[in-house]
Amino acid sequence: MSNAGRQLTLNLFIYPGGHHEAAWRYKESEPERVLDIRYYQELARKAEAAKFDAVFLADGPSLAENVRYSSRVRFEPVTWLTAIAAATEKIGLIGTASTTYNEPYNLARLFASLDHISGGRAGWNIVTTSDAGAAHNFGLPEHPPHGERYEKAREFLDVVTRLWDSWEDDALLADPRSGVFADAGKVHRIDHVGKHYRVRGPLNISRSPQGRPVYVQAGSSEDGRSFAAQFAEAIFTAHQTLQSAQEFYCDIKARAAALGRRPEHLRILPGISPFLGSTEAEAKRLEEEIDDLIQPAASLDQLKRMIGVDLGGYDLDGPVPRHIIDTNGPKGLASRFQLVVDIVDRENPTIRQLIRRLAGARGHRVVVGTPEHVADEIQGWFEQGAADGFNVMPPYLTGGFDAFVTEVVPILRKRGLFRQEYSGTTLRDHYGLPRPDSLFAAEQRRSA
Amino acid sequence: MSNAGRQLTLNLFIYPGGHHEAAWRYKESEPERVLDIRYYQELARKAEAAKFDAVFLADGPSLAENVRYSSRVRFEPVTWLTAIAAATEKIGLIGTASTTYNEPYNLARLFASLDHISGGRAGWNIVTTSDAGAAHNFGLPEHPPHGERYEKAREFLDVVTRLWDSWEDDALLADPRSGVFADAGKVHRIDHVGKHYRVRGPLNISRSPQGRPVYVQAGSSEDGRSFAAQFAEAIFTAHQTLQSAQEFYCDIKARAAALGRRPEHLRILPGISPFLGSTEAEAKRLEEEIDDLIQPAASLDQLKRMIGVDLGGYDLDGPVPRHIIDTNGPKGLASRFQLVVDIVDRENPTIRQLIRRLAGARGHRVVVGTPEHVADEIQGWFEQGAADGFNVMPPYLTGGFDAFVTEVVPILRKRGLFRQEYSGTTLRDHYGLPRPDSLFAAEQRRSA
Repeated sequence: MSNAGRQLTLNLFIYPGGHHEAAWRYKESEPERVLDIRYYQELARKAEAAKFDAVFLADGPSLAENVRYSSRVRFEPVTWLTAIAAATEKIGLIGTASTTYNEPYNLARLFASLDHISGGRAGWNIVTTSDAGAAHNFGLPEHPPHGERYEKAREFLDVVTRLWDSWEDDALLADPRSGVFADAGKVHRIDHVGKHYRVRGPLNISRSPQGRPVYVQAGSSEDGRSFAAQFAEAIFTAHQTLQSAQEFYCDIKARAAALGRRPEHLRILPGISPFLGSTEAEAKRLEEEIDDLIQPAASLDQLKRMIGVDLGGYDLDGPVPRHIIDTNGPKGLASRFQLVVDIVDRENPTIRQLIRRLAGARGHRVVVGTPEHVADEIQGWFEQGAADGFNVMPPYLTGGFDAFVTEVVPILRKRGLFRQEYSGTTLRDHYGLPRPDSLFAAEQRRSA
Repeated sequence: MSNAGRQLTLNLFIYPGGHHEAAWRYKESEPERVLDIRYYQELARKAEAAKFDAVFLADGPSLAENVRYSSRVRFEPVTWLTAIAAATEKIGLIGTASTTYNEPYNLARLFASLDHISGGRAGWNIVTTSDAGAAHNFGLPEHPPHGERYEKAREFLDVVTRLWDSWEDDALLADPRSGVFADAGKVHRIDHVGKHYRVRGPLNISRSPQGRPVYVQAGSSEDGRSFAAQFAEAIFTAHQTLQSAQEFYCDIKARAAALGRRPEHLRILPGISPFLGSTEAEAKRLEEEIDDLIQPAASLDQLKRMIGVDLGGYDLDGPVPRHIIDTNGPKGLASRFQLVVDIVDRENPTIRQLIRRLAGARGHRVVVGTPEHVADEIQGWFEQGAADGFNVMPPYLTGGFDAFVTEVVPILRKRGLFRQEYSGTTLRDHYGLPRPDSLFAAEQRRSA
């Protein structure tokens, strides 16, 4: 692929307290503001001033278990983003929501509302929810298995898409003279009857500025890749090495092309967590300083979620018991399991080294060094077929993001890789994605 | 009850396009702004400048059928209120949400987020959803019957309450030195196992500024009254006559007292839709001018929802066929059915007169006259045991509200009935309601 004129996508992934699991303890953090909406509004305004494409929020409908050690409280993402929308003008707003634990009609309303309220800046990070604990909050005897969750997700997405399309773009007239509020012929029932859902529609809000919020996805399993290639317009993904990212990038773009999609309409965005210093040694000291705040009990809980095995009974300074992982996994997050196994095979770390390795960004790639070095790494992946941009995951907030904006972004800009100004107003504009027609309008044109 | 020092509660009930069903066609309306969030932010700021207690939003998870004639699109209320929260500082934010068509965990998160984001201004108008069409958007073969909806609502409310209480007020420590983010002993599973729900908890957000959002309710059936007397802290209710409002007020307060509640902790707020003019004749002309914009087909749809009978085949200028109503109803909204029957019995209107009578505020009380007259009516109900305040339902927006604020509110203030300034910052402060302790904290104190 030619890189001429290609522009990086940069999202700010906001994680309460910062992405490093011990970041909330770092001297420059403000953990007392973890539920202060102004804190997030200020962060988003900084990201907008830096012309970032979007802010990105993770989510799961349950409380993680290691609440004693870790910053685990958070707002519901759509309300969170709505409050951010009210404090910003251009930046995209991507929120995670589960297809397993929502009703499609309710979810369609939430994101359509956000898209209207923000003037076309909403994105939906579609997840099936990996945390088995969520099932207990929704009356299920157990978390549905992976394949069933994805089967449901496909049907869910179809329903939500049709609900968003149920009002054609020109259906709302609001014409006082004729007394016609809406052209009823352009407001459609969807009459969906499927294996998991029966939904009649139409939605009770007209089509939103983007037609549909941007479809974002973050799965890396076989089901996840297949789903993403078919539906996603942006993919958030975790890779430790250039090679792994290239393989993923190439695979997803090829799958999308095989489905008749234009590969550039699918933005692939690995996570990157930058520890910055004016020298490499200074950057390493920052990482060590935050690593030293790690509480192993919390890290072992985190690791257990990734690999399905509790290593709490082993010597922290002894080797990772590889055979235990092999015989037990993958029971956690499929994508993270493989990533951990790869690290163990490649680096042969002690348990303590492994948890420090993973503490930075929950398995996402950590880059430690000078602004030039971080910019080089970003450019390298961008130009070598590994990424269309990045979900930037500052290890601590807000300083870790401030450093990226003041030191790395200007280098990227000088190299012609990142925008000076927004050229549009919607998230689809920022990502270079088309605005989809309503399926119902398209059907009517075909039958006309 | 002594009226000395008692203060009126005033909410602004915002209905897109205005409360009169033809208001969106009125020359001073701005129907093109029906999904412009700034329009609602401006309205809420006006209400806050007038020191109103709260804004109030209705909701139902379906699209009403007469979309051709009527302004039926709307934002999802919690996102809507979050955007309003970001543009205001003190005014309360009451949103309607259904216990029949939400999951308790999701709803608890949405309102807890709103309460955090707004600094303690959230209220939840608890409804079981009267529109049978909603069932078709949620995979149900039919709308659950009234009694079953209320049974579910009681369990739903219990679950949501415990989720809001699942973090004790002092559970979140975020202490960087000790590394303790939360006192895990003060974060509780709720382990609810009931007939309709199984929810483990805890919630994934700490206790909100009000402890719990304010519980608002709007049912008038026997089930509704019983539910309200037990749980509601404010009741929105529809009455056409002083006598009917007094009966309701007296009944609810007595029921609450019998349950050991303090009657003043339950604010009873009838709807009132004021048509204002500098003379009575001018006010009547305003009402007629808007009534003349009514489209009978839309009104008959609306009437059908209230009484369960379609009168479309009858002469508009003939009498209301009383026996048809008797043999068919109540199939619609139980509370509205009785209200319509009472009007028919009292006033013996033609069908056209009946639909004009109901067009003003969907069955709520319309008061037409000078500012003095409207203030007298408000004071009369307030001082004669019929109301603790009102949900003000301007017939058209924003002018209908502007007139109330500039002309009626100063009279109420002069008479010592309405605040000059807010004395607190939360909706509980405005309503004079206590902040509830967490049930779990109370249990622990008892067992200590």
